[in-house]
Amino acid sequence: MQRSNGRANDELRPVKISRQFTNIPEGSVLIEIGETRVLCTASVEEKVPHFQKGTGKGWVTAEYAMIPRATQTRTQREASKGKLTGRTMEIQRLIGRALRSVIDLKKLGERTIWLDCDVLQADGGTRTAAITGAYVAMIDAVQYLMEKKLIRTNPVQDTLAAISVGKVQGNVVLDLEYEEDSKAEVDMNIVMTGAGKFVEIQGTAEDIPFDRTDLYNFLELAEKGIRTLMEVQKSAVETTA
Amino acid sequence: MQRSNGRANDELRPVKISRQFTNIPEGSVLIEIGETRVLCTASVEEKVPHFQKGTGKGWVTAEYAMIPRATQTRTQREASKGKLTGRTMEIQRLIGRALRSVIDLKKLGERTIWLDCDVLQADGGTRTAAITGAYVAMIDAVQYLMEKKLIRTNPVQDTLAAISVGKVQGNVVLDLEYEEDSKAEVDMNIVMTGAGKFVEIQGTAEDIPFDRTDLYNFLELAEKGIRTLMEVQKSAVETTA
Amino acid sequence: MQRSNGRANDELRPVKISRQFTNIPEGSVLIEIGETRVLCTASVEEKVPHFQKGTGKGWVTAEYAMIPRATQTRTQREASKGKLTGRTMEIQRLIGRALRSVIDLKKLGERTIWLDCDVLQADGGTRTAAITGAYVAMIDAVQYLMEKKLIRTNPVQDTLAAISVGKVQGNVVLDLEYEEDSKAEVDMNIVMTGAGKFVEIQGTAEDIPFDRTDLYNFLELAEKGIRTLMEVQKSAVETTA
Amino acid sequence: MQRSNGRANDELRPVKISRQFTNIPEGSVLIEIGETRVLCTASVEEKVPHFQKGTGKGWVTAEYAMIPRATQTRTQREASKGKLTGRTMEIQRLIGRALRSVIDLKKLGERTIWLDCDVLQADGGTRTAAITGAYVAMIDAVQYLMEKKLIRTNPVQDTLAAISVGKVQGNVVLDLEYEEDSKAEVDMNIVMTGAGKFVEIQGTAEDIPFDRTDLYNFLELAEKGIRTLMEVQKSAVETTA
Amino acid sequence: MQRSNGRANDELRPVKISRQFTNIPEGSVLIEIGETRVLCTASVEEKVPHFQKGTGKGWVTAEYAMIPRATQTRTQREASKGKLTGRTMEIQRLIGRALRSVIDLKKLGERTIWLDCDVLQADGGTRTAAITGAYVAMIDAVQYLMEKKLIRTNPVQDTLAAISVGKVQGNVVLDLEYEEDSKAEVDMNIVMTGAGKFVEIQGTAEDIPFDRTDLYNFLELAEKGIRTLMEVQKSAVETTA
Amino acid sequence: MQRSNGRANDELRPVKISRQFTNIPEGSVLIEIGETRVLCTASVEEKVPHFQKGTGKGWVTAEYAMIPRATQTRTQREASKGKLTGRTMEIQRLIGRALRSVIDLKKLGERTIWLDCDVLQADGGTRTAAITGAYVAMIDAVQYLMEKKLIRTNPVQDTLAAISVGKVQGNVVLDLEYEEDSKAEVDMNIVMTGAGKFVEIQGTAEDIPFDRTDLYNFLELAEKGIRTLMEVQKSAVETTA
Repeated sequence: MQRSNGRANDELRPVKISRQFTNIPEGSVLIEIGETRVLCTASVEEKVPHFQKGTGKGWVTAEYAMIPRATQTRTQREASKGKLTGRTMEIQRLIGRALRSVIDLKKLGERTIWLDCDVLQADGGTRTAAITGAYVAMIDAVQYLMEKKLIRTNPVQDTLAAISVGKVQGNVVLDLEYEEDSKAEVDMNIVMTGAGKFVEIQGTAEDIPFDRTDLYNFLELAEKGIRTLMEVQKSAVETTA
Repeated sequence: MQRSNGRANDELRPVKISRQFTNIPEGSVLIEIGETRVLCTASVEEKVPHFQKGTGKGWVTAEYAMIPRATQTRTQREASKGKLTGRTMEIQRLIGRALRSVIDLKKLGERTIWLDCDVLQADGGTRTAAITGAYVAMIDAVQYLMEKKLIRTNPVQDTLAAISVGKVQGNVVLDLEYEEDSKAEVDMNIVMTGAGKFVEIQGTAEDIPFDRTDLYNFLELAEKGIRTLMEVQKSAVETTA
Repeated sequence: MQRSNGRANDELRPVKISRQFTNIPEGSVLIEIGETRVLCTASVEEKVPHFQKGTGKGWVTAEYAMIPRATQTRTQREASKGKLTGRTMEIQRLIGRALRSVIDLKKLGERTIWLDCDVLQADGGTRTAAITGAYVAMIDAVQYLMEKKLIRTNPVQDTLAAISVGKVQGNVVLDLEYEEDSKAEVDMNIVMTGAGKFVEIQGTAEDIPFDRTDLYNFLELAEKGIRTLMEVQKSAVETTA
Repeated sequence: MQRSNGRANDELRPVKISRQFTNIPEGSVLIEIGETRVLCTASVEEKVPHFQKGTGKGWVTAEYAMIPRATQTRTQREASKGKLTGRTMEIQRLIGRALRSVIDLKKLGERTIWLDCDVLQADGGTRTAAITGAYVAMIDAVQYLMEKKLIRTNPVQDTLAAISVGKVQGNVVLDLEYEEDSKAEVDMNIVMTGAGKFVEIQGTAEDIPFDRTDLYNFLELAEKGIRTLMEVQKSAVETTA
Repeated sequence: MQRSNGRANDELRPVKISRQFTNIPEGSVLIEIGETRVLCTASVEEKVPHFQKGTGKGWVTAEYAMIPRATQTRTQREASKGKLTGRTMEIQRLIGRALRSVIDLKKLGERTIWLDCDVLQADGGTRTAAITGAYVAMIDAVQYLMEKKLIRTNPVQDTLAAISVGKVQGNVVLDLEYEEDSKAEVDMNIVMTGAGKFVEIQGTAEDIPFDRTDLYNFLELAEKGIRTLMEVQKSAVETTA
Repeated sequence: MQRSNGRANDELRPVKISRQFTNIPEGSVLIEIGETRVLCTASVEEKVPHFQKGTGKGWVTAEYAMIPRATQTRTQREASKGKLTGRTMEIQRLIGRALRSVIDLKKLGERTIWLDCDVLQADGGTRTAAITGAYVAMIDAVQYLMEKKLIRTNPVQDTLAAISVGKVQGNVVLDLEYEEDSKAEVDMNIVMTGAGKFVEIQGTAEDIPFDRTDLYNFLELAEKGIRTLMEVQKSAVETTA
């Protein structure tokens, strides 16, 4: 299989993470993976959802959307339709759950960090890009809280990144583009921590069920990609914004 | 860890599959796994969604709901709220995708099989019970189509069942009840075919990320449970309804 | 006119009332009248709607729904459509009103009994079956409250049941099946108390207006059917659950 | 019991029916019964709902609404809430059903008459006033169709009017005002034809169930009131508009 | 250009303002401008929206709707559609904003005046008629508050009226009817105070952009029309209701 | 009055227009005016709304949205709320109307150009920035249609830009920032063509009505600002993308 731009099966697309892409939010990160671009903003709100009230614990939650022409043909706005699609709900629940797995809500205190992931351009892998970028935006929001002395100890417990793997025309490949994704036999999204543990594994056989050997290959490839993403996150965070 | 009713960690709850639970639908299956009970009905509709029109291919889709008092405290109806929750959407997309993986839509022809999974009582594992029961209801609907000579060759390619596994207080356990699920460190749903291949793997670390050894244990346990479920499905299907 | 199963014009279909059909709710009753089956669950909630707050009085309310394939052809879920139909609203208002007519809300105290009537199979008379079954579920919920010593004196003041009558091809008939209902000239639903008084009379001439003689015949027939239903309720309640 | 303005228990409030209250619609009738005022407009549309297409038959349907300050305290608009209340749905279904009972849909031909009943001021009895007024607006719309030679034979088969009766503080009374209605033990709406037959009987015991003697008294009183309303309709229709 | 009824280009249609059109609201005004008729009711509510709470200031807000057959062909109810159109929202925001510009919210105190503008018949200029009529209804509501001694000093600071002007077939005209409006090159709505100042100018070139000379002509014409409207308002207010 | 960055009252903020900000749409323009940033994408769709079908004419329409943290505090998504606010509807109707005023829909042919204006950061003047940026995106979409030979003659008849003016603390100022806008006495949005004519004038006195002299000053200032914006548009369009 020939991948676009001569990319190897185990190779990520070029990744770029820009902090402070806009000036207002506590965190504002543009993540670009190939042609996929997601703007991840972090907003701190000094209240929590009703189910956390009085627990002393905070909350981290995410919302995900695409601008209508992020896609090859224009997609109708969910606001115009008057409701979210199942796909959007599924993705924003995944992002929130992933981020909560590396933050100590007790140390965060009774406040919420909102992560808004707005896809400006979509070429596959938007949900994993959103997790990877939102992690950096969350780091910036936490930094803001510590500078304001609103929290004392850093609640973030580990790094976090995500990538897609899959099988396309029989090949096990890393970081699927839209073209590849649309014809993949298997599509799997993996979220891992810096400690090399799994937070989420979501694998779907679109047409052809897969066996354990495939699975082991997917996991190995995903870990490799996630390691690279964590390096890009690290150098973005270390750069003085 | 002591499980209820002295159940072993690798043991399923009692499973019962009743066909023709109601008389009107083409398939009507009540599946009971412990205290969890899901009514799965199959309806044949002689048309397909717009994206399949003119392709000669059929469609299989699912809807999932709970009656309000399936749960310990009454849950507000989604019809009264005016919209589906993210959880419901996620589950019904999963059920539909899983069933489509074992049916040849070309052989089904341009018609739709609707699988309605209505949870009458919920004690954990409703989504995997729904998949396991809906598979049997789909078999009945296919049988109906063959008897009516609307289709000639059986489009069902393999058997299909699903189960949950997870880690509770450090123990790897099969088929989590509600009590266990609500305090699980890891929760994983596995959908497999009779050929022993994976159709879906959805694993989530609620609090504590998991490593590969955990994953391998989960998969082994799941396969064991799914084999048992497939035997129950088989004897239900073989019984003259 | 020949009715199905050789039923006489003044004869009810076979009636069966099963208590504790599911285990979680305070009351859970499956009522079957011929092929019509309605699951009626009662849930106690320790709060009242805003208009009852601070009055010392409780509330009894009902919700009604059908699973999609309760009907001959699949009906779209109201949750998917995002709103209740007029028919559903009309029916659930009727059920709630009927049940409130035999309970002393002062004695119930500031709490709500929810009656959820979920139609599993529909063959005419679902709203009157729902009232008749929900009455038994309400009795169980009241029993629960008395056993828990949450209320001291039984707030239920009388028994309650409901039935349909109508005119089909010129014949005055009791307990219409779907086939009969769909071609009826007049369709009337009657709710009565054990004291033989009317709680609701809702009669509609679909095509041919009716006169007083018809009306008197309808009422007589309805009372006869309701007396039989009350016996079935009585023996169900007297059975140790 | 002392009724307002010294009205007798079997006496209607003053009734006035004004045709051509607005100029645009095919029929436009303001009906005033005491302080209750309903504007009933009839609109002819040269198409039918999907379920009547190709049958050669027409349709008559109604919509009902109140302006926000028709009531003693301002009621929120249903358009602002984004949905119709159960009460509104129940009423507009009743009005449509009642009007269809006196029109031959075959003679009407494949077109729809919409009856819009907008309550400008509400003092009890709005639904029965709406039926009584909408009947006259429908007559005007039919007249328009005959003058335009769109239909040849008059499809209206009988006259139609409606009134409320009830029991207030033990008294059987005709045409309840809001004050009376809000404390009534029994509230009943009756729709009758000129031939003296019933189209709808909807009786509800709010607190105290009623017996057959009550019912017979209600019916007698209602018929008396309806006869008077039909005279007012007749003289309104006979006046050259 | 020949206008209907031989009206001159700078001439208003006949204007009539009737107070106490209905009896329940604090203010109830029917304004008729030619065939356009709008019922404007004012309701006093002893609370304010959340953003005004605790400020000591009141609020004035408006809602606008048309009955379905106000228009030449029946328009679907927004309540049936389940949402307001953009046009309705735009108009009700305009009416509220205009009325707030002539009232001292501090003197009004923490209460709300709702102005409901229901169009009974529409022949162009409904939004400006609504503003002109709602002003009078607001005056009546303020009068009511002063008589009840709920407020001490009159919060109304100036008179207010509104009119449309535009260019039709090259002619600058005052007070456009529907026929004229639908073919206008420019359509402008002007809201002015008694002091001759502008509260709102909303001008739209439908097809042909306009220049400053046009604009100056529009403003002059509008002021002339608004002066006439204010005289009609004045004599309506001075009449003992 | 001291404006931020020492800006003069008649001075625009720095303006930057970047074409091809994303790669997928037919037109993709990022417009930045000070801290306000709007992404305007143009999408061509080969069909028209139902009211244009069969007319041979095309359509140009706009949608407007803000990402949640475009604003100082996070704004809830309209998609989550399930409906558009009145403000959004008003703005997107304005943008569409403005763009249609400079395009010959006959020459465009039966196709639609969608202009999606997504505000990434909001600091006042987002609607006028959206019009100014969307014009350039529309030019790019038209260019695309001409290169594809889908249209033969350029349907764009004139240039178009928009700006806000207003009165702040008694000063007539150009291009209001959020801080200024929130305390402005008068706020006016002006849309003009290259020929110096008005397409839209929308002026609102928030507190203090304005007179004609103010209006003339507003118009002069607006025209000055719009001339500058048109130069920036021109040089952006002339740059080879």
